[in-house]
Amino acid sequence: MHHKASRKQIDAVIATVKIMGLTAKPIPGSQRTAIGVLGNKGYINDLNIRDLPGVKEVIHVTKPYKMVSRDFHPRGTIINVADIEIGEGKRPIVIAGPCAVESENQIIRTAVAVKRMGADLLRGGAFKPRTGPHTFQGLEKEGLKLLALAKKKTGLPIVTEVMTPENVSLVSEYADVLQVGTRNMQNFDLLRELGRINKPVLLKRGMSATIEEFLAAAEYIYAEGNHKVILCERGIRTFETATRNSLDLSVIPLINELSHLPVIIDPSHATGKRSLVPPMSKAALVAGANGIMVEVHPEPDKALSDGPQSLTIQGFEKLMGEIRKLTSFLGY
Amino acid sequence: MHHKASRKQIDAVIATVKIMGLTAKPIPGSQRTAIGVLGNKGYINDLNIRDLPGVKEVIHVTKPYKMVSRDFHPRGTIINVADIEIGEGKRPIVIAGPCAVESENQIIRTAVAVKRMGADLLRGGAFKPRTGPHTFQGLEKEGLKLLALAKKKTGLPIVTEVMTPENVSLVSEYADVLQVGTRNMQNFDLLRELGRINKPVLLKRGMSATIEEFLAAAEYIYAEGNHKVILCERGIRTFETATRNSLDLSVIPLINELSHLPVIIDPSHATGKRSLVPPMSKAALVAGANGIMVEVHPEPDKALSDGPQSLTIQGFEKLMGEIRKLTSFLGY
Amino acid sequence: MHHKASRKQIDAVIATVKIMGLTAKPIPGSQRTAIGVLGNKGYINDLNIRDLPGVKEVIHVTKPYKMVSRDFHPRGTIINVADIEIGEGKRPIVIAGPCAVESENQIIRTAVAVKRMGADLLRGGAFKPRTGPHTFQGLEKEGLKLLALAKKKTGLPIVTEVMTPENVSLVSEYADVLQVGTRNMQNFDLLRELGRINKPVLLKRGMSATIEEFLAAAEYIYAEGNHKVILCERGIRTFETATRNSLDLSVIPLINELSHLPVIIDPSHATGKRSLVPPMSKAALVAGANGIMVEVHPEPDKALSDGPQSLTIQGFEKLMGEIRKLTSFLGY
Amino acid sequence: MHHKASRKQIDAVIATVKIMGLTAKPIPGSQRTAIGVLGNKGYINDLNIRDLPGVKEVIHVTKPYKMVSRDFHPRGTIINVADIEIGEGKRPIVIAGPCAVESENQIIRTAVAVKRMGADLLRGGAFKPRTGPHTFQGLEKEGLKLLALAKKKTGLPIVTEVMTPENVSLVSEYADVLQVGTRNMQNFDLLRELGRINKPVLLKRGMSATIEEFLAAAEYIYAEGNHKVILCERGIRTFETATRNSLDLSVIPLINELSHLPVIIDPSHATGKRSLVPPMSKAALVAGANGIMVEVHPEPDKALSDGPQSLTIQGFEKLMGEIRKLTSFLGY
Repeated sequence: MHHKASRKQIDAVIATVKIMGLTAKPIPGSQRTAIGVLGNKGYINDLNIRDLPGVKEVIHVTKPYKMVSRDFHPRGTIINVADIEIGEGKRPIVIAGPCAVESENQIIRTAVAVKRMGADLLRGGAFKPRTGPHTFQGLEKEGLKLLALAKKKTGLPIVTEVMTPENVSLVSEYADVLQVGTRNMQNFDLLRELGRINKPVLLKRGMSATIEEFLAAAEYIYAEGNHKVILCERGIRTFETATRNSLDLSVIPLINELSHLPVIIDPSHATGKRSLVPPMSKAALVAGANGIMVEVHPEPDKALSDGPQSLTIQGFEKLMGEIRKLTSFLGY
Repeated sequence: MHHKASRKQIDAVIATVKIMGLTAKPIPGSQRTAIGVLGNKGYINDLNIRDLPGVKEVIHVTKPYKMVSRDFHPRGTIINVADIEIGEGKRPIVIAGPCAVESENQIIRTAVAVKRMGADLLRGGAFKPRTGPHTFQGLEKEGLKLLALAKKKTGLPIVTEVMTPENVSLVSEYADVLQVGTRNMQNFDLLRELGRINKPVLLKRGMSATIEEFLAAAEYIYAEGNHKVILCERGIRTFETATRNSLDLSVIPLINELSHLPVIIDPSHATGKRSLVPPMSKAALVAGANGIMVEVHPEPDKALSDGPQSLTIQGFEKLMGEIRKLTSFLGY
Repeated sequence: MHHKASRKQIDAVIATVKIMGLTAKPIPGSQRTAIGVLGNKGYINDLNIRDLPGVKEVIHVTKPYKMVSRDFHPRGTIINVADIEIGEGKRPIVIAGPCAVESENQIIRTAVAVKRMGADLLRGGAFKPRTGPHTFQGLEKEGLKLLALAKKKTGLPIVTEVMTPENVSLVSEYADVLQVGTRNMQNFDLLRELGRINKPVLLKRGMSATIEEFLAAAEYIYAEGNHKVILCERGIRTFETATRNSLDLSVIPLINELSHLPVIIDPSHATGKRSLVPPMSKAALVAGANGIMVEVHPEPDKALSDGPQSLTIQGFEKLMGEIRKLTSFLGY
Repeated sequence: MHHKASRKQIDAVIATVKIMGLTAKPIPGSQRTAIGVLGNKGYINDLNIRDLPGVKEVIHVTKPYKMVSRDFHPRGTIINVADIEIGEGKRPIVIAGPCAVESENQIIRTAVAVKRMGADLLRGGAFKPRTGPHTFQGLEKEGLKLLALAKKKTGLPIVTEVMTPENVSLVSEYADVLQVGTRNMQNFDLLRELGRINKPVLLKRGMSATIEEFLAAAEYIYAEGNHKVILCERGIRTFETATRNSLDLSVIPLINELSHLPVIIDPSHATGKRSLVPPMSKAALVAGANGIMVEVHPEPDKALSDGPQSLTIQGFEKLMGEIRKLTSFLGY
């Protein structure tokens, strides 16, 4: 409360807290009075209190997420995809592939190459979210079929994006891991729908989502019953224009403190620049990431999307060599 | 091109442009060569070019939107809702009501009051997007029915949010204007679905969307056939924590230059603070907004969401008196 | 404290607070214990406490500023410059002139014109902060002399920037109001030096400064003894690139709640676009600004800096006509 | 130019370019005309052109910095401090010490410990920039003397901050490397003064400075004659509040492409959280940083500033062990 808050104002706050079904506990200080709010189960809405006369500030001690919190689940969650284990203490995984599935030749050629070089999963977009309606939006179902073909040829499990609740069941037929894109991190109907399936979900951080919002979005999936959620940092939107986004690797150890879910990094979308992908991939692994997801394209100059941030196959081969040495150094 | 770009590098860029089906026109300068790309219809993807060796920078002269652009439709679009006209040269409208529909008593009481004070439309959320899954998510269909009742009692047209493509048809039955929330500005399936109905859409700017992305999102609806799009600025996410968001009113004249669509302001979500709503409402009108949307609640202290930013009925009455004088001063 | 914090951890926090010379008051709750820190005079450093084992969060109830706070000085400060009064309840002032003083002809021509049209003060930069060292840095002392000449011709008091403590005395000889630029808002030696003179200071908000930091910067000047501080919002840096900065007018009523100091708006630097200056100027006045500062140049196309955001003399004349009507409507 | 730009508007732009002493070269396209501006030496001000009628957009091909650019100095700069070499291809350095010099006991104890554990330089602030005037501002000259004592005891060269041009000569007497803080990155008088001395300068990135502005600030020092500039990334200000700042390690390889100057990382200020410092330190080294600067305090809980982000001596010892293994793995 303000240092000038009247007795009446303090009582009004206490009364409001009671109306909310909670317990108010006034704590008088030398200059002002604080009022503790107790007894809530989970996060409570402060909007009933925040603007009452005499209130200086409302502070939350609890969070909008609970089940994905490390507090309530101290051991790291391990997620299985085929025979691959993702999470704390496991060898970091590498997901590789083109931004978008463009043709049979492109996806098969990429899949065969990245498999040979040691990738663990194949990525490729069949449904593509694009800023404007007049650009390539993905091959859709045809793209999913090409991914299935690539899986058949190489054995690589598939990671691909789903953009809308009604497509969850379709995409589930083809994908081993369903990806939620940055623009959909708070598409709550989509999250809930994904909470009802039994396949891992790779949830990308919204481009301007706080870590708290990111974990709360994961909670939507988790609370619905699907506990296989992999978090993916892909850069945040800032004032800087020299890189596509600003990649904040400090979220890796931070999320590891706050949550038990695995966290991986997408350095391709984060930086938007091919030459920055290898150093950021290695930095992510040293910082404790449980994996990376990188874009690889056999001919980036002809890619229908995100060419400049895609590694060539040669570039990916070089990176995989470096990663092998690094993960071995790290004890995997 | 870089000042050291080789003839071969320049030729490679020209060849890539040709592969894209476009015309490349090299423009040699004293220190470096520029290459113009011509003949495209609409925005083109620069990713094939941006990282070719020797390329210094790619500049776009065209935009990811076209149909919503003022260039291609110089006269301002006027949108009709019942007998109200929204847009350039028309009296600015006032949309008022609670954040969420909570009960029959609450919504009817608010509707009757704001109608009496001169509001043009009634707002109220039946489907509520919330950060975490453990908070009040709206009354859903029951809320829509209460809004219909409020409309029946007052004659006020209804503005309410739709969050998912499959609910567009349900919400259309009750709403006069369908709102897209800030988290869904790039939910492209939702936008496309809204492009296929014949009712006005109120599109809120994403909390970290650029004006270019905002107009491109409107283009998704417009291109699908629904030309009744009202843009709504509701504050952007910045480093500042003293207000809920940072309201940038300069987008009003800016959008008026770039687009023919009407633009309104939501000062309640933008500021998150009741006391800032009246000054920002009036500032918006003077800056040229085609309307404002404000939260009003009969008992903000008991509101289930956004209480601190809601005006009381008395506060709204006072604001409406000031707005009447101001719009009269502005010549309406 | 965390809900699992041990008795020992709680005691360690209490002991640390005591070492800091303050009183710790534990407040046990149903799930966790809060510890109130009391008895401090002014803001305290939480760094001794924030990372102790078991601490969940530290919340500040006090602020890094005090003397500029409305709490401790409820009536608005009025600042006199010549016979002009700036502040609460007074007619909003207009400061006009070029970004930089370029020549005698340019500054005199502008001064005579803006005086005739009703400007209250003349602005013009003699010392110019520029991103790179290879661009025009201002006429320096020669520029100050030209401003003095313009003042002699027109009677307009002068607002001009000072960039370094050692120039405060020189600039004071010529200026009626000394401006601190956005890049220097936290140049604390400069602020302290300005706190020791007896002339008004116009303090621009740092381009990424929070309101709290802005008021704390004003406190540096105020605490040193100079109480004549005018705050100036000039747009903040965000992800948006369509405008030079993002102008948040909601800081006007917000600062009016938090502080007793006058606040003015610079719509020219905020938007970077001439066409946005008039609507933002008028919006600022309606929102309660105590004045505006706009760039005017007789030939913006030839300006050595900030031409695109400068009004022409004709443009300024038109704006002044509109402002006169508006301030009259507002009751001045 | 706009696609509707008239012949007259095009000619006006060409004429303006000529007035600026440059060459204009019109390039007609199928829909619009581009005008190349040639013959400039270094960055030119576009403000004369940007708002002329018919102009759609102005694109810069040159930058506000030149001498610090890799283009003009392809080999990485190596900077010597005592017998330590900092820069490309050299073993990454470790700068360690407390945020502020607080007492003889504190600084000597820290210096002896970090020396023993392998630190290369000692950091410690004698002049401290603080948000508000009512907090500890550093021991000033007394602090410099204590640093000199610590150097005498350990042989460690000293890195310490200088805040104002008039103190450059004083601080130079004691410091081996002079630090410019984030708030002073665009204190151009300070930069110029540092350009006139013959000691290395550690320039911290402004908390909201773009990489272009950062390099332009370095250019101020470099252009004045002092070529010994070390760049330091310390996190940028974003919307995220879970960390003190957002550390973007992708600037390491990016700066290595753009500039020949060494770049180091300060993970302590970047994250504000002790537990994030070790993973971010190691990630920085793997990403190619030429060094790190970390805060170490013998009793962080009693530190007068930045305690929560300071490593304990034990924590630093552990980190140094890990760094030794990592740099050995990296080939140093």
